[in-house]
Amino acid sequence: MSIRIGILGYGNLGRGVECAVKQNPDMELTAVFTRRDPSTVSILTETAAVCRVSEVEDWKDKIDVLILCGGSATDLPKQTPEYAKLFHVIDSFDTHARIPEHFADVDAAAKESGKIGIISVGWDPGMFSLNRMYANAILPDGADYTFWGKGVSQGHSDAIRRIQGVRDAKQYTIPVEAALEAVRRGETPTLSTREKHTRECFVVLEEGADAAKVEEEIKTMPNYFSDYDTTVHFISEEELKRDHSGIPHGGFVLRSGKTGWNQENNHLIEYSLKLDSNPEFTSCVIVAYARAAYRLAKEGQTGCKTVFDIAPAYLSAKSGEELRKVLL
Amino acid sequence: MSIRIGILGYGNLGRGVECAVKQNPDMELTAVFTRRDPSTVSILTETAAVCRVSEVEDWKDKIDVLILCGGSATDLPKQTPEYAKLFHVIDSFDTHARIPEHFADVDAAAKESGKIGIISVGWDPGMFSLNRMYANAILPDGADYTFWGKGVSQGHSDAIRRIQGVRDAKQYTIPVEAALEAVRRGETPTLSTREKHTRECFVVLEEGADAAKVEEEIKTMPNYFSDYDTTVHFISEEELKRDHSGIPHGGFVLRSGKTGWNQENNHLIEYSLKLDSNPEFTSCVIVAYARAAYRLAKEGQTGCKTVFDIAPAYLSAKSGEELRKVLL
Repeated sequence: MSIRIGILGYGNLGRGVECAVKQNPDMELTAVFTRRDPSTVSILTETAAVCRVSEVEDWKDKIDVLILCGGSATDLPKQTPEYAKLFHVIDSFDTHARIPEHFADVDAAAKESGKIGIISVGWDPGMFSLNRMYANAILPDGADYTFWGKGVSQGHSDAIRRIQGVRDAKQYTIPVEAALEAVRRGETPTLSTREKHTRECFVVLEEGADAAKVEEEIKTMPNYFSDYDTTVHFISEEELKRDHSGIPHGGFVLRSGKTGWNQENNHLIEYSLKLDSNPEFTSCVIVAYARAAYRLAKEGQTGCKTVFDIAPAYLSAKSGEELRKVLL
Repeated sequence: MSIRIGILGYGNLGRGVECAVKQNPDMELTAVFTRRDPSTVSILTETAAVCRVSEVEDWKDKIDVLILCGGSATDLPKQTPEYAKLFHVIDSFDTHARIPEHFADVDAAAKESGKIGIISVGWDPGMFSLNRMYANAILPDGADYTFWGKGVSQGHSDAIRRIQGVRDAKQYTIPVEAALEAVRRGETPTLSTREKHTRECFVVLEEGADAAKVEEEIKTMPNYFSDYDTTVHFISEEELKRDHSGIPHGGFVLRSGKTGWNQENNHLIEYSLKLDSNPEFTSCVIVAYARAAYRLAKEGQTGCKTVFDIAPAYLSAKSGEELRKVLL
């Protein structure tokens, strides 16, 4: 029998999960839950239902794992503990500083209901976290580096769009190649914010807007841009659509460490991602962990888990025997 | 209380484990067991004993995890099941084709004795296997590539040394940059053996040996060299000592995969290692899994495990709370 998946929230991430489920023959999409009027939402999977969020409780026995595709700012802190009362749930909560609190909330709810909740699944947090953790455990004497990009930052693009005179914008975060190379040479440099990433902005102005003023406002915006070397390009709406409609991303996790009786040997562990679609890749990770949630639940486990708590074999559709034979 | 480690076999790997234990404050090296006369073996850790392998049973209650540092060809297939009767054990068994059989032997022994045995720990098998497995679970529609090097292959160096007229030799396995780049571009090429790696040999001849004949013998050696583009350099003994006494290694695991409703998006996952000392890095991985073995045993688990079966958090000295706060 297939693992029956529900999706709550049908934006870029929800659609990504729908596509990922299609690629995994041991899963099927059962229903999509939306806050919009279901008659206005058209999904890709012909066999799945589209329902109002308010109806989700009726699906309690028809869904094995509910994947929460809302945002981290306001949706997930409320939704994940709430729906963990009814379903095994997975989210991609990515506000790093608030993870301990979110973990505690989901853990309490899931333990009470006897469900599994897996939080902060994706690539960062997610695969990048895993790689930081493995590398730290292996090389205790070393330094960590995470670089993001080249990729579109939704938050930074939004911040530009809020400036008066801006019609639309896309912002790319770009790792500084020289910094990456220094780390790869084993130099363990101390890097400032400015030395790690640059920011490149493509901006469409409203008619009559003052380009110089907009550029100044972007470059001096605290937190978002003022600590970075930022480049601003003004382009037409057609150019933005034609050249910048994708949502690529990626990045690098490195750990440089020393071993030997007198720390005489250097080692570099590097993990990198180059993604055409940030939400689709995130969705693929989530769906693999949905399989894990289903299996952990079958074993009677409950409570909140993160990628650190789950043995890798749970993610794979292959048996332990096949994994040892083919991939070990 | 520290995790008490025993080492069986004191070659490059055993010494590497000794160094790695020193870097982990929650562990201590208790004893080294050797087939040589203990009075002839001098170790680095002042507080540890050096004993005969035949005495190992006396240490049953004084060692928490015994790390087996023998070779995969003849030592480990016998030793790991044998010592799993007395201790929680870890090995770095790396004959990929014989892993299923070795797993079954260790599993039977460890289940009977109520011990944990973790096999095939290191970087390949080990960290490379983990990365192949995670990447396969995340991108089910894709292609895998593993490249090794640049690094010293012990087996190939030994094969050259067995040729008449060769006094000493070192062989480097080198990934073909063009093949790596094609994979990184998302081309999913089908690569022959020759297209993936080249082999570079540094050879010291015996006096009066025929260089042309030795070169021919190397380049045509079946399995080892005949399927590769091989370069042979003849150098002096001093040059070999000066420039080629290290045992560096490393490599790359890549998975290139597609997502999207119509497979329209490409993704690349890449994991790479650049290691000054192959045995010391392998040892670091083993020691992290020794911590996992200790904890799994405390939970009452028994039998044979591989890196696929162990949740990442078990490897780290940090608590779950700290991991979530700092590394997630």
